[in-house]
Amino acid sequence: VGSLDWNLLLYDFVSAPSDGQVHRIEGSILSRQTRFQKVDIYQSEGFGKILTLDNRVQSLERDEFVYHEAFIHPAMVHCREPKRVLVIGGGEGACLREVLRHSTVEQAVMVDIDGELVELCRKHLPTWHQGAFDSPRVKFLAQDAKDYVQECRERFDVVIVDLSEPTPGTPAYFLFTVEFYQLLARVLQDGAVVTFQSDAPALHAPAIWSITVNTIRQVFPYTRPYVCTVPGFGSEWGFTLASFSPLQEMDAAQVDDVLAQRTAADKLRFYDGATHERLFRLPKYMRQWLADETRSFTLDNPPLDKLL
Amino acid sequence: VGSLDWNLLLYDFVSAPSDGQVHRIEGSILSRQTRFQKVDIYQSEGFGKILTLDNRVQSLERDEFVYHEAFIHPAMVHCREPKRVLVIGGGEGACLREVLRHSTVEQAVMVDIDGELVELCRKHLPTWHQGAFDSPRVKFLAQDAKDYVQECRERFDVVIVDLSEPTPGTPAYFLFTVEFYQLLARVLQDGAVVTFQSDAPALHAPAIWSITVNTIRQVFPYTRPYVCTVPGFGSEWGFTLASFSPLQEMDAAQVDDVLAQRTAADKLRFYDGATHERLFRLPKYMRQWLADETRSFTLDNPPLDKLL
Amino acid sequence: VGSLDWNLLLYDFVSAPSDGQVHRIEGSILSRQTRFQKVDIYQSEGFGKILTLDNRVQSLERDEFVYHEAFIHPAMVHCREPKRVLVIGGGEGACLREVLRHSTVEQAVMVDIDGELVELCRKHLPTWHQGAFDSPRVKFLAQDAKDYVQECRERFDVVIVDLSEPTPGTPAYFLFTVEFYQLLARVLQDGAVVTFQSDAPALHAPAIWSITVNTIRQVFPYTRPYVCTVPGFGSEWGFTLASFSPLQEMDAAQVDDVLAQRTAADKLRFYDGATHERLFRLPKYMRQWLADETRSFTLDNPPLDKLL
Amino acid sequence: VGSLDWNLLLYDFVSAPSDGQVHRIEGSILSRQTRFQKVDIYQSEGFGKILTLDNRVQSLERDEFVYHEAFIHPAMVHCREPKRVLVIGGGEGACLREVLRHSTVEQAVMVDIDGELVELCRKHLPTWHQGAFDSPRVKFLAQDAKDYVQECRERFDVVIVDLSEPTPGTPAYFLFTVEFYQLLARVLQDGAVVTFQSDAPALHAPAIWSITVNTIRQVFPYTRPYVCTVPGFGSEWGFTLASFSPLQEMDAAQVDDVLAQRTAADKLRFYDGATHERLFRLPKYMRQWLADETRSFTLDNPPLDKLL
Repeated sequence: VGSLDWNLLLYDFVSAPSDGQVHRIEGSILSRQTRFQKVDIYQSEGFGKILTLDNRVQSLERDEFVYHEAFIHPAMVHCREPKRVLVIGGGEGACLREVLRHSTVEQAVMVDIDGELVELCRKHLPTWHQGAFDSPRVKFLAQDAKDYVQECRERFDVVIVDLSEPTPGTPAYFLFTVEFYQLLARVLQDGAVVTFQSDAPALHAPAIWSITVNTIRQVFPYTRPYVCTVPGFGSEWGFTLASFSPLQEMDAAQVDDVLAQRTAADKLRFYDGATHERLFRLPKYMRQWLADETRSFTLDNPPLDKLL
Repeated sequence: VGSLDWNLLLYDFVSAPSDGQVHRIEGSILSRQTRFQKVDIYQSEGFGKILTLDNRVQSLERDEFVYHEAFIHPAMVHCREPKRVLVIGGGEGACLREVLRHSTVEQAVMVDIDGELVELCRKHLPTWHQGAFDSPRVKFLAQDAKDYVQECRERFDVVIVDLSEPTPGTPAYFLFTVEFYQLLARVLQDGAVVTFQSDAPALHAPAIWSITVNTIRQVFPYTRPYVCTVPGFGSEWGFTLASFSPLQEMDAAQVDDVLAQRTAADKLRFYDGATHERLFRLPKYMRQWLADETRSFTLDNPPLDKLL
Repeated sequence: VGSLDWNLLLYDFVSAPSDGQVHRIEGSILSRQTRFQKVDIYQSEGFGKILTLDNRVQSLERDEFVYHEAFIHPAMVHCREPKRVLVIGGGEGACLREVLRHSTVEQAVMVDIDGELVELCRKHLPTWHQGAFDSPRVKFLAQDAKDYVQECRERFDVVIVDLSEPTPGTPAYFLFTVEFYQLLARVLQDGAVVTFQSDAPALHAPAIWSITVNTIRQVFPYTRPYVCTVPGFGSEWGFTLASFSPLQEMDAAQVDDVLAQRTAADKLRFYDGATHERLFRLPKYMRQWLADETRSFTLDNPPLDKLL
Repeated sequence: VGSLDWNLLLYDFVSAPSDGQVHRIEGSILSRQTRFQKVDIYQSEGFGKILTLDNRVQSLERDEFVYHEAFIHPAMVHCREPKRVLVIGGGEGACLREVLRHSTVEQAVMVDIDGELVELCRKHLPTWHQGAFDSPRVKFLAQDAKDYVQECRERFDVVIVDLSEPTPGTPAYFLFTVEFYQLLARVLQDGAVVTFQSDAPALHAPAIWSITVNTIRQVFPYTRPYVCTVPGFGSEWGFTLASFSPLQEMDAAQVDDVLAQRTAADKLRFYDGATHERLFRLPKYMRQWLADETRSFTLDNPPLDKLL
């Protein structure tokens, strides 16, 4: 066709279809239907490789360090001595990568329902996992997280719940309800810290975020929601720390201290004490949303389309 | 990212960047850099597979029958007895497929510079070639068309020139000039008919089409431009018959008669006598453009960006 | 926001949401909600002004001559002596403009439900109407076409039905059914010719076109569907001539002859005898669709979303 | 055209053309060319009205409170007693609105080169200015900021520099250089605080932000850059406090205290002490960019396309 220019555009809306992000795509690296979902990896012009699952952007090569450092380290530093860590989901292996930076970690168990996805990520996303799957400290299980937690006889110091959106019909659907959060108690060591990705506190569609956080609050007596801007998502993104034991507020010096003791802190590009303080200070209107939120997701009232 | 809907969009502008076509893409089937060009095959929602070269749409599964029947049969039926046919370009194999429908054809030689592209099309675009490459009547050469024509000692009854856009830097650049058209005379049998894809006679940017046709007129004493609407391109598309012998106007009955003698005419979905009459009757304003056109492409004045 | 480039894009899909057209917009000229519909006029980069009704592209400055010449003149030349013409819809005034080119016309009555739309077009789209509304031969009535036809005591030689898409909820809904076409008989002079815009015979979604044509065939014993490519729509567009008297096939010479007698034929840019022959020769697959079509739109089975 | 759905899309890229934001537009409210720039106001589906200047998004109705509270209050609370405030640019009137919340303010002078823009904003953007232009404390001058500053005999406690992007050819071009910042010293009271919007610290294109901040550092001995996420921009946005006197770090309690004394703090939706602490704690990688930045914009080396 008579054209001098052309673009393959990846369009991903943020929280509501009225507004979204567009990324110019240079080409496709992979397109595969696994037993559980459609996996695509694209080469983008601005953000390197982009991984999508069922056509939704999951992470971008150039800024995944923001997402994964923001997600993992707050839970790790809030835990006095994280020896055993459970990662639920997190197929790219970047959660594992950040977990392993902590020298206290003796074992990290990762449970992702889609073993084929994990194989594809191991092969095609080396800058994400950076060899984490090969660590002797890592055990990977291709299993439904619900089954794993129900049958598990082990306990963990930190649990990381990195699941795709709770869209009806996707594997992660049940995993966003009060019932699953209650089940999680089975695998928690005393003083354990859990962290959840909690969707976007979008100004024009905040409901998923505030209900997700409130759902966590129904089960865990101590919670600390925090918010990080992920550049490639074009939006702020919520995470929530949760525990059955008190979660002490940590200042920059304390965080930097823990990082210095346990990790090669200079390897981190996003997270340190000052960044930690940024993450946990929410804008006033987000605090207000949480204060006002009374809804929660349960098996009888799961995350529905109309809420999204 | 929190989205329930999402689209990968293939954007291809028509003749000028101000206006274009968008196709929803379900996934990528192939993305490969050959020695000569970037080859992508996508699965689209509305038009099946789409082949792009260097990010420009070449053909779409659902409507390629329109393009290829419109392109091949007028030249074939204008030729009294097409025994030997040369196809320059046409990597998908669909030109060959249509050529082979004519029972008179003894040999069809296809010359495409990019042998790897042809291999990819053989593997991934079976509905295009429908086995044409395996016909004993077909000979394929992975060679520069210019070199082939310069060294060729054979002559042909019909020559089909199916080249990508004459964008500076692409293999097809030289092949849109007066000089190449003069060279073609070497391989033409007496009474031979040549057909060229001739770009889009776009209302808001008609120059490439009218100059391309006028370039052909500089070399061939007999020419018959015609125009077909290709649905997936969202525009009309030009083709041009050319010969050193008179090209007689054929009416519907004559065309249907030739088709009936030589082909299984009921297999054709787009082309027949009535369609033929449609193709060769141009809208008044296009005839006016051709009447007014005095420019042509030569080695000293090749198809430049500014003309496109 | 930190940007050097930017685009306002008008997206309009063709027949099905999988594929569409994009036009770069330089600015908005008008945005108004009338009693009946949302009216917008944009300045586009490639096609001049664009009129949309309820966010659907109706016509484009640069190519409306194609649409309106293709629509009006076949009906006019098929009518032996068109003295009285009725235009239903056609708010831009370009149908009137083409009707008035025929010197036989004594009166043209235009009935459009939306008087405010017509006022806006008179003011903002001068290149469309070119003063047609001011002609002493023209009478404009802001009235529902159904009411007008039901109460009308006049009869017409040519009737032009230029209505928006039959989307549920829009004014044109009833006007696409067998029942309305039957009602039209009331206002037809002996030998009258009616012409309908009949939607797009889109390769990937042909149903609206073929059912619309078949609906007309249920009422009128003589019909002649034809197809024109409208560049700004990025697709072919259907029109249908219909009559209770035989519609004789006309060749190029006959058409040119009628135009020469009645009009300043050199003012036409798209239509003449050769173009006429193009329009009425449909591609083979479109003829096949019509041959196979048995459905029609009635009050009990109106044009529904699921058909579109 | 045969469509059931349709979108007018406003595309605005963030920092580099590879990635951008798309907003669905319901209609245009205004499109006007003033003496200085093209002004458009759109009605969007997700963010209410959107103001663009020369086709670049300036602010969005639904989230402008984030931008303007983040921009104005840090400078105001860092100033011991802001009596006289100068706003350069800020045509929407929302900067004034936030300035006037501080009871210490006796006079706010706003200088915007484009008086016609300000008139349009007064008329069409009432939720932005909320009557600020009518306050007896406000004086508006339609004047080039450079001329105003050069000739000014008054001095100010706070100066707010709210300018469009420094694109070559736009009014704001000179106003992003070392030379203009030096000129500003003329109008500063002892202890005055200046605040600048400083563009986006975009992960894939951080240069404008880091050079802008560094340019400010060339002139002012005390600077405090901070970063706010603006949802409608789909990105983080930089602001910079600057002074010739020390800028003391303020904690949440101090900020809340000042707000309580001077403003009806409960009217603020985004800004308070906790939000303040978030704003001034930059992510680690942004701090690194600033530490590494050595370039600056001067008249001899102005913000060029290649940097953007």
